[in-house]
Amino acid sequence: MTLTITSVSIRDIRFPTSLSLDGSDAMNSAPDYSAAYVVLHTDSRDGLEGHGLTFTIGRGNEICVAAIQSLAPRIVGLSLEAITADMGAFWHDVTAGDSQLRWLGPEKGVIHLATAALVNAVWDLWAKAEGKPVWKLLTDMTPEQLVKCLDFSYVTDAITPEEAIALLRRQVPGKSRREAHLVEEGYPGYTTAPGWLGYSEEKMRRLAREAIADGWTHIKQKIGSDIEEDLRRAAILRDELGWDRTLMMDANQVWGVEESISNMRRLAAFEPWWIEEPTNPDDILGHATIRQRIKPIGVATGEHCHNRVMFKQMFQAEALDFCQLDAARLGGLNEVLIVLLMAAKFNVPVCPHGGGVGLCEYVQNISMFDYIAVSGSLDNRVLEYVDHLHEHFLDPVVIRRARYMPPKRPGYSIEMTAETLERYEYPNGPVWVDLAQRQQA
Amino acid sequence: MTLTITSVSIRDIRFPTSLSLDGSDAMNSAPDYSAAYVVLHTDSRDGLEGHGLTFTIGRGNEICVAAIQSLAPRIVGLSLEAITADMGAFWHDVTAGDSQLRWLGPEKGVIHLATAALVNAVWDLWAKAEGKPVWKLLTDMTPEQLVKCLDFSYVTDAITPEEAIALLRRQVPGKSRREAHLVEEGYPGYTTAPGWLGYSEEKMRRLAREAIADGWTHIKQKIGSDIEEDLRRAAILRDELGWDRTLMMDANQVWGVEESISNMRRLAAFEPWWIEEPTNPDDILGHATIRQRIKPIGVATGEHCHNRVMFKQMFQAEALDFCQLDAARLGGLNEVLIVLLMAAKFNVPVCPHGGGVGLCEYVQNISMFDYIAVSGSLDNRVLEYVDHLHEHFLDPVVIRRARYMPPKRPGYSIEMTAETLERYEYPNGPVWVDLAQRQQA
Repeated sequence: MTLTITSVSIRDIRFPTSLSLDGSDAMNSAPDYSAAYVVLHTDSRDGLEGHGLTFTIGRGNEICVAAIQSLAPRIVGLSLEAITADMGAFWHDVTAGDSQLRWLGPEKGVIHLATAALVNAVWDLWAKAEGKPVWKLLTDMTPEQLVKCLDFSYVTDAITPEEAIALLRRQVPGKSRREAHLVEEGYPGYTTAPGWLGYSEEKMRRLAREAIADGWTHIKQKIGSDIEEDLRRAAILRDELGWDRTLMMDANQVWGVEESISNMRRLAAFEPWWIEEPTNPDDILGHATIRQRIKPIGVATGEHCHNRVMFKQMFQAEALDFCQLDAARLGGLNEVLIVLLMAAKFNVPVCPHGGGVGLCEYVQNISMFDYIAVSGSLDNRVLEYVDHLHEHFLDPVVIRRARYMPPKRPGYSIEMTAETLERYEYPNGPVWVDLAQRQQA
Repeated sequence: MTLTITSVSIRDIRFPTSLSLDGSDAMNSAPDYSAAYVVLHTDSRDGLEGHGLTFTIGRGNEICVAAIQSLAPRIVGLSLEAITADMGAFWHDVTAGDSQLRWLGPEKGVIHLATAALVNAVWDLWAKAEGKPVWKLLTDMTPEQLVKCLDFSYVTDAITPEEAIALLRRQVPGKSRREAHLVEEGYPGYTTAPGWLGYSEEKMRRLAREAIADGWTHIKQKIGSDIEEDLRRAAILRDELGWDRTLMMDANQVWGVEESISNMRRLAAFEPWWIEEPTNPDDILGHATIRQRIKPIGVATGEHCHNRVMFKQMFQAEALDFCQLDAARLGGLNEVLIVLLMAAKFNVPVCPHGGGVGLCEYVQNISMFDYIAVSGSLDNRVLEYVDHLHEHFLDPVVIRRARYMPPKRPGYSIEMTAETLERYEYPNGPVWVDLAQRQQA
């Protein structure tokens, strides 16, 4: 099928999540989960469109929208055939082809978030054109085809295209068995439902019991506001979970290196499996130090790790026990794939960042591909699940007994309903107009 | 004096430098040097304003403008007294006080570039209110006052406030002697004038001779387009410079780690003092590897090093021989100061990034303060000078026999003339309207 991207429309979509305390953590007390949302329009006779988004937590979403507007001309006029014939070159062109825009990063912050929305929309378009969900599009590629989608700039000291092909070939034999297993059993998830900072003890206990009843075995607690409070809340969760279920903790970057070590030594009494984002996400050496000094608690980070060069060093420095890459913080799926391959080489399990809006929809595709074709393993791997805002998607995640069931609909699972796109547009959609009127009243 | 910031105006200022090949390098072939430019208006009876800018190279400047617009409400309504009473807390509030905006970095890319423009404008305002250039405002502070301007979040494992005070106290005795020396002799500079990639051999030779005649002893060559070409051009420059003058090289990030090592081993024949930006600016461990393997050539980087956490690790990993911090890539002067202090502790000379538009004006203040009050040394220190666009400033840099003479006018030396702000506004200033008309004709 020949089709050309004829135009890009961009929307500022926001959900007023700060009205409840859903999503509250030590760093982000009142987020309005938001998406800088992209639609690639094409000349396809079937009306095919590519959808993609980058996730933010409210104010500043308009800056991502501005960045997508500045970047979009690089892909308008391209045919899907030309893009997919050398997806690695396409990605390099989007991120490095305009040196004036590259200056704003390079490959980090707003311009890279914008890249993710556009690049992921291209993958959505490609998968729809092939009639497959993204995880299946990826698993059906040969190792050579997959590696051709990647840009190895600045990472060949950690992984070469030849090594990547060899890693993928190693997993070819078991692919169909693992795919069948996923379709049958799903991919294991974990929940933060009872663990948000803003919740009362009563609410924590009730949500923990519900989570256990629903089959969740891995539960994450937000910490980092106050150590005594963290200890008190960990005791409540352990009381509900018992010691056979797994408890993880997430400090959302609020500590320094020494503070992380001393606090986690106290929280060790509650046997956390990992500490997530103990300190600044740029602090590779800091994470390595923390990891050495709080074993056997694992160190997890990645949702703010901004590109493959940072993850490369996280692996080289042995800073991580769990890689929590983000589908929209990295520059879209191409860069996610190269991080998956490096993680496999360095034997670090990938447990992507879920939550927000749309992240669970994205990352289920990533983890399923990782299991089928890259790592070949479910050991030490759980996929974050947060029960917010899924109703806004055409193809929301399906959870069965705490496991993600593989999406079947073609695309990257990220297309929002037309009604949502109309109602939640900021600031002129009816939801926001109503809110503004109520706040004035 | 009590004054309050009443409003912020923001302009998109661009210079069509891509029409010549001034500023061409291996990564940035055709930059239009630009500034997202801020004016802080106040209720001062003297009409005091704070001016600041962040530097970009053209497209994308509008994204920085959008980011400044989103960030500006955090400082409108504040009094200068309240800000300067606890400048460290102010800086923390601007960078971390709004978690929704922080998400876009954190502390990197567009949102941090925007922070720099606003924060530097506050310093400009403060210095004007005190009737001093910024370098003098800083050197007249006590160690305690200076350290109170800083936010030590995420760097206390490298430097504590107490250590910073001790470092500054060590230099108190020689301060007036060094200040007098600077006023008399100036601060040593270096030039890239003959070394840009786009120049012919004839132009290189002519500019090299002119530079030597003007007293320059340190000259930088842009490299990285093609190694044979780099070798040929290095031979031309060495032919003109002889072997007693100093040659530096700058690859502008185009190589991988292994490529950097093999190329610099060939270029070693021309005895470069440093190789600047051999590879990706995020690659701390890569720079450390390169440095180990190409000694005695020094490794220099920093103009794209985005915050104090990255510089901290550059120092901890012994990745750098020269720290080339940028006055607008870091989040303004407060963060620059903490990097200066870490560099002093780790004994790494600071040679800030000049060039672009306004960077020389900014960084002369930084290097002069460093010499007088932080490092106390000129050893292995030269300040980049590029002879572009200075005519647009009210208080342009003054170079005498290849040395920067200390600015005398109050402020951060960054205020552009009213005529420039009107003529170069993009896209509706007369310079850009004329260009658009000529391109249509």
